[in-house]
Amino acid sequence: MLAALSLTIPALAKDVAMKTAKTMPELIKASSPADWRPLNPENTLYLELDKGRVVIELAPDFAPQHAANIKTLIREGYFDGLAIVRSQENYVVQWADPDEKRELKTAKKNLEPEFTVPYSAQLPFTRLPDADGYAPQVGHANGFAAGRDPKTGRAWLAHCYASVGVARGNEANSGSGTSLYVVTGHAPRQLDRNITLVGRVMQGMELLTTLPRGTGALGFYEKPEQRTPIVAMKVAADVPEAERSKLEIIRTESATFKAIVAAQRNRGGEWYKVPAAYIDLCNVPLPVRQQKN
Amino acid sequence: MLAALSLTIPALAKDVAMKTAKTMPELIKASSPADWRPLNPENTLYLELDKGRVVIELAPDFAPQHAANIKTLIREGYFDGLAIVRSQENYVVQWADPDEKRELKTAKKNLEPEFTVPYSAQLPFTRLPDADGYAPQVGHANGFAAGRDPKTGRAWLAHCYASVGVARGNEANSGSGTSLYVVTGHAPRQLDRNITLVGRVMQGMELLTTLPRGTGALGFYEKPEQRTPIVAMKVAADVPEAERSKLEIIRTESATFKAIVAAQRNRGGEWYKVPAAYIDLCNVPLPVRQQKN
Repeated sequence: MLAALSLTIPALAKDVAMKTAKTMPELIKASSPADWRPLNPENTLYLELDKGRVVIELAPDFAPQHAANIKTLIREGYFDGLAIVRSQENYVVQWADPDEKRELKTAKKNLEPEFTVPYSAQLPFTRLPDADGYAPQVGHANGFAAGRDPKTGRAWLAHCYASVGVARGNEANSGSGTSLYVVTGHAPRQLDRNITLVGRVMQGMELLTTLPRGTGALGFYEKPEQRTPIVAMKVAADVPEAERSKLEIIRTESATFKAIVAAQRNRGGEWYKVPAAYIDLCNVPLPVRQQKN
Repeated sequence: MLAALSLTIPALAKDVAMKTAKTMPELIKASSPADWRPLNPENTLYLELDKGRVVIELAPDFAPQHAANIKTLIREGYFDGLAIVRSQENYVVQWADPDEKRELKTAKKNLEPEFTVPYSAQLPFTRLPDADGYAPQVGHANGFAAGRDPKTGRAWLAHCYASVGVARGNEANSGSGTSLYVVTGHAPRQLDRNITLVGRVMQGMELLTTLPRGTGALGFYEKPEQRTPIVAMKVAADVPEAERSKLEIIRTESATFKAIVAAQRNRGGEWYKVPAAYIDLCNVPLPVRQQKN
């Protein structure tokens, strides 16, 4: 095969050794078990497709009501047998009830928006050193890219690649989790504070991004047979332990993560000639790996 | 099918009517023929795949030597029968000679880098009003997202979704166009000024983004049969006029484009509740449409 360094460009997560500091791969290699946290099965969702599993982590710190309602929908079987109804190039993939006929049981049909939440010292927040055009402050809280505004005391999840959100109509309270979307393109940050984000895809993005694009308005599929069936959606805690995806994510409050951000802001090594001395929020890697302990 | 406004989120290019100003679709509808320019067949490349055509516009203002060498490679049949050898999730798709055996004819094997170029008043530049973390100034020149630095008098293309670049090894002059890549994920702006960009995909991104991801290092395909064959690469000027893709792009120096940027910086309408009052360079839409005149 083509030699990895022959006429190639480095992978975001696979830069060659830096001249002056450790690279992200080196920092990950040197990390301690305490730098990682396993996904909490009660906050982890599986979107099961014929071709595999998409693993989603919920962010109840930012959308407690929506996270709870989505788990209720899942546990009442709402999504099983539904479909991915939309794939729009450089924007989102979305799933829902194509026929809009499925009945709700105890899950709520509408929820008050959780576009932003109050933040407190209890919510860890590792700030990025640089300015961001979309928020007064940006950084990471419990592994999620977020913005916050000290003037209002509010925080919110940012729309980055792999973010998972709750589709809604024009009314702010018209969403409840019966239709979810995943960002599959360049970060549409203009959606921040306009729609409720509930989490992020931790594994399986390629199962969504390689789907054929819908040819209808907004990238909706025009024919039922073009849709991708949802085998089931499950809460990881309800899946036998042996069948769970055992993943762990870097602790974004750890010194290792801060060192990774510093390394990514100034890529070194033999390949890079001009370090950016900057990193935008949605370019910050959030390493996820198979659980080691 | 699912009603477009039922539990959905707006398309980047399909926002509902703004309360206070025209939306992008309205501005495009109201645009005059003079707001658009056709692609120049001498600067337009076709990457022909079994499933369709990817249309690329070269940016000779920013990479004259590389643009010329790529056209020479194409006209000498260098790419015909080669393959897409790499697809890395949220990063790039890349094509090259998988066997690295193809001989060059008159095309150059190496070129001095064109990471940045001097800029002059001859190069139109429509600045964005906002700060950018990766460049002192950002905006658009002849339809391409670019950065520039008044202190050095240099300008460069920015790595946005659909940008086309020249793969290289560790040496700055180790690329020449025999291997090209297209950005298929969140803008990897840290590559700016580190590698020569030569243009942008104008049509057919979905033919690249839906390719299976490579499972080897850096997203390279591990087996020959996983690669996507390149039927041919052609310069549009060498294709019979009846077989050309007749596209036109908004003139980024036009008042219509400036109005589009203003509209996208502050999305209004019934759906948006909080306008961003900002847009990052790679979120600025660059409308392309079938040529009308």
